[in-house]
Amino acid sequence: MYKAKVIIKRKKSILDPQGKAAEHGAVLLGFKNIADVRIDKQVEFLVNVNDEETAKKEVSEFCSKLLSNPTMEDFEINLEEIDEV
Amino acid sequence: MYKAKVIIKRKKSILDPQGKAAEHGAVLLGFKNIADVRIDKQVEFLVNVNDEETAKKEVSEFCSKLLSNPTMEDFEINLEEIDEV
Repeated sequence: MYKAKVIIKRKKSILDPQGKAAEHGAVLLGFKNIADVRIDKQVEFLVNVNDEETAKKEVSEFCSKLLSNPTMEDFEINLEEIDEV
Repeated sequence: MYKAKVIIKRKKSILDPQGKAAEHGAVLLGFKNIADVRIDKQVEFLVNVNDEETAKKEVSEFCSKLLSNPTMEDFEINLEEIDEV
């Protein structure tokens, strides 16, 4: 069994309005040293297969078909083998 | 200057409806091995101070005052020293 941790990020060239809002909020609250805020998604899940190749394939398909928007976002996959839970 | 990477997670005991929706979507798309999906936030930003203690204090205040909801969420902070950009 594997534990997958996927980070889904907007491409660098695409504006991140949620990050901009947090940045602006920081200024309003008096945080003067905070800049360049980007807010992305981290998705964690279990993959119930025993072979790494199959797990990678399934996770990458799941990311591109459902979790991310390939036009605007990139994803990074981390897989870690774990014991059955 | 520091680069901060903060993961904001709902507490384990709190339902994650977005994760549940992705899990259900996975079943509908025929992914049979994916379970326990949780979707969290990853926030990245620059902290323009030169001393680690001050950076930590400012980031942790920013997280608890603006980025997270302390009733429902926990956060994890990672700081990495970087050269000026």
